[in-house]
Amino acid sequence: MSIADKSVISVEQFDRDALERIFACADECVPVARGEKSSGALAGKILANLFFEPSTRTRLSFGAAFRRLGGSVETTVGMQFSSMVKGETLEDTVRVISGYADAIVLRHPELGSAARAAAAATVPVVNGGDGPGEHPTQALLDVYTIRRELGRVDEVCIALVGDLRYGRTVHSLARLLTCFRDVRILLVSPPALAMPEKVIAYLDQRGVAWEKVGSLVEATRMADVLYVTRIQAERFDDPSDATRLMGTYIVDRAMIESAERSDITILHPLPRYGDLAPDVDSLPGAAYFRQAHNGVPIRMALFCDIFDCEP
Amino acid sequence: MSIADKSVISVEQFDRDALERIFACADECVPVARGEKSSGALAGKILANLFFEPSTRTRLSFGAAFRRLGGSVETTVGMQFSSMVKGETLEDTVRVISGYADAIVLRHPELGSAARAAAAATVPVVNGGDGPGEHPTQALLDVYTIRRELGRVDEVCIALVGDLRYGRTVHSLARLLTCFRDVRILLVSPPALAMPEKVIAYLDQRGVAWEKVGSLVEATRMADVLYVTRIQAERFDDPSDATRLMGTYIVDRAMIESAERSDITILHPLPRYGDLAPDVDSLPGAAYFRQAHNGVPIRMALFCDIFDCEP
Amino acid sequence: MSIADKSVISVEQFDRDALERIFACADECVPVARGEKSSGALAGKILANLFFEPSTRTRLSFGAAFRRLGGSVETTVGMQFSSMVKGETLEDTVRVISGYADAIVLRHPELGSAARAAAAATVPVVNGGDGPGEHPTQALLDVYTIRRELGRVDEVCIALVGDLRYGRTVHSLARLLTCFRDVRILLVSPPALAMPEKVIAYLDQRGVAWEKVGSLVEATRMADVLYVTRIQAERFDDPSDATRLMGTYIVDRAMIESAERSDITILHPLPRYGDLAPDVDSLPGAAYFRQAHNGVPIRMALFCDIFDCEP
Repeated sequence: MSIADKSVISVEQFDRDALERIFACADECVPVARGEKSSGALAGKILANLFFEPSTRTRLSFGAAFRRLGGSVETTVGMQFSSMVKGETLEDTVRVISGYADAIVLRHPELGSAARAAAAATVPVVNGGDGPGEHPTQALLDVYTIRRELGRVDEVCIALVGDLRYGRTVHSLARLLTCFRDVRILLVSPPALAMPEKVIAYLDQRGVAWEKVGSLVEATRMADVLYVTRIQAERFDDPSDATRLMGTYIVDRAMIESAERSDITILHPLPRYGDLAPDVDSLPGAAYFRQAHNGVPIRMALFCDIFDCEP
Repeated sequence: MSIADKSVISVEQFDRDALERIFACADECVPVARGEKSSGALAGKILANLFFEPSTRTRLSFGAAFRRLGGSVETTVGMQFSSMVKGETLEDTVRVISGYADAIVLRHPELGSAARAAAAATVPVVNGGDGPGEHPTQALLDVYTIRRELGRVDEVCIALVGDLRYGRTVHSLARLLTCFRDVRILLVSPPALAMPEKVIAYLDQRGVAWEKVGSLVEATRMADVLYVTRIQAERFDDPSDATRLMGTYIVDRAMIESAERSDITILHPLPRYGDLAPDVDSLPGAAYFRQAHNGVPIRMALFCDIFDCEP
Repeated sequence: MSIADKSVISVEQFDRDALERIFACADECVPVARGEKSSGALAGKILANLFFEPSTRTRLSFGAAFRRLGGSVETTVGMQFSSMVKGETLEDTVRVISGYADAIVLRHPELGSAARAAAAATVPVVNGGDGPGEHPTQALLDVYTIRRELGRVDEVCIALVGDLRYGRTVHSLARLLTCFRDVRILLVSPPALAMPEKVIAYLDQRGVAWEKVGSLVEATRMADVLYVTRIQAERFDDPSDATRLMGTYIVDRAMIESAERSDITILHPLPRYGDLAPDVDSLPGAAYFRQAHNGVPIRMALFCDIFDCEP
């Protein structure tokens, strides 16, 4: 396999073995990610970090991963700074940039853009989010965080809370969880924002247990992990519906205490807004900042895999 | 003291001893800052240079300081590229970014933002200007420049010229000068743009001599250093007042020669506009470009202090 | 000669000897540019990559060149992030930035801006395009690509196709080709977009053979190299003229096959639009992506020349 074939486009590229290998490498990367150990694994290498829509968090996380391994990062943010403004195709853009970098991270608003880029590029392309499509490294770091927080992913019961219809993150996460044994998924959302049939069918086909749970408190009592996502008011036809419904999916200290689950592990892809109250931050299981930080070792592990090196 | 407590938020953190230590370290940093010597002091370290409002000069100066010490710099410019657009708090933003970098430089338009960021971050935060608040590294480099140009700060007579009311720079500078012995401050401004009472009270309390001087030529005769700042027309109610008054605070060669002080040291925080004429540039005491360049060794010295290393 | 005098502003700075030296150095840089060999030639050095108008391609190419040599790159994109918004002169800006970097690459929309910047800076300035002025490194990489593709530049017959009036690239290229022996230039453009008299006069004065060729197929039959550029519809008074005329300057597979020249070398400064069809990409002589990639070793060679080092 040539290095240009090592693109990371979809979670469906990963099976259990690949995940275990990446997670083991990520564990080794942790002290380097924290700056406690240094690495020259990618010394002399250049990453083109191409963000055609804003995402400071994802951009900085990829950048930090590449830099911590000793590499150098060239950043382009915003559609307006691209020759694509002048009408160049994405294919031509990445083919040219293939001559300026050893790998490309692409964030782009169009579905399928990452796969198109990977086909045109002569260096590996990592999908940093392709609009309504996938954001595979987010799903990888989510599962990696469950593994680090709970010590396992097998047999985990996870409640997916909030907007399960439009939330790209929960789709990829649900798919990736099917690689593990005896996982149970609780779906907690307004009916209008329910998990798409396509994802449900995938879970069924791979034999993963799931059930819809109407009450957030009830789900909190049942789950090992709460994975909270944001509900956007604009998803509802009737604004008064929005306010009322969104209020029933807010994770705060009072809700968690009423479920008697101060020990529960809480994840969130961030940024959060009103959906996850700051009074939860001091709970021991409030793991969302650790989750964000896990993005660095996971992305380092992917780069190690791509460039066939150790951290 | 943990490294996260090493944030640089205000000039009031510095006493005479701290200043002398930083200035001595900055002197050692000068050849490295000029690229004559190389340093690997911060090899493997990452700086997040977060500029939520434009300031090319300050941003590049911090970036150069970190790079000259062997570190790597991740830059974010402009509010529009931040998850804060989506409603994330500054606290969440810096807490997440704490996992991607070893230190954060923050330029932000809101008063008090740097202190809030430092409280939330788990890595040191350096204030790169918090709106009408402080810009401590500018004041440090200003005093450092006086020391380098005149060989001392004690017993210096400095005229602060221009907009003393809204000019953040002169407030921080005046405060920092109180750490030195027998400093004398001349205040040269339109009455409507006079130094705020609060700063005057601070000078009185710390026993620093000051006086208002009505004539720029007169002040130029008396001072060792002219510190020139810009008067903005929009500060005046009456535009015709503006033009007339601003004209009396322009530093040019004719003014300096009429004061018979071609030897005077001239500083300016830059950028300049009409307030400081290019015909002054060739005077031996025209030190404002050297002053700008002194930002690099001063910021290197702060990073050495934060990371407890030598240049 | 001091290093600050080593600015690269115009193709007219280069004679045959200088070109041969740079091309030989670029050849040595190729494996480093591709990441097959690493270099620490510019370790510790900082490049300020100042792009006051968007040009992702040129910016990343300069950045990659400097990074591949071990240096570090500080990027500023867009006029809005500059103190120039506040009214600072270009001269003051580059004089200040001279203290933050070891070299400056400047892309700026104003004719003559690069020369003005070089006069004010105390470090070398490389012209990355000054509006309607020059883009010397593009011309260097164009000629370098001819040399690599054909093994020589002497005795080459090159057809310049498209907008020869406003296309900055073809003006610089034509001038640079006069350094070589027995070059023949075919000019293929709509009459309204013909090569300016000034450039024609320069060719005559330097004894370079040129002729206007009305038919693209005819020129393709005659030439060793087709150098294709874009015709912009807005250059024509009458939009219906535009569509008709532009159609006669499109390079596609059918045109090349009708000229029986599937072996011809095809160059394009990129980005392309409708002017060069993707069905040409698989021809062995479709060299435009290699041409883009040659920008890295050529710019590395210029940096080696400026800093007097080996790759």
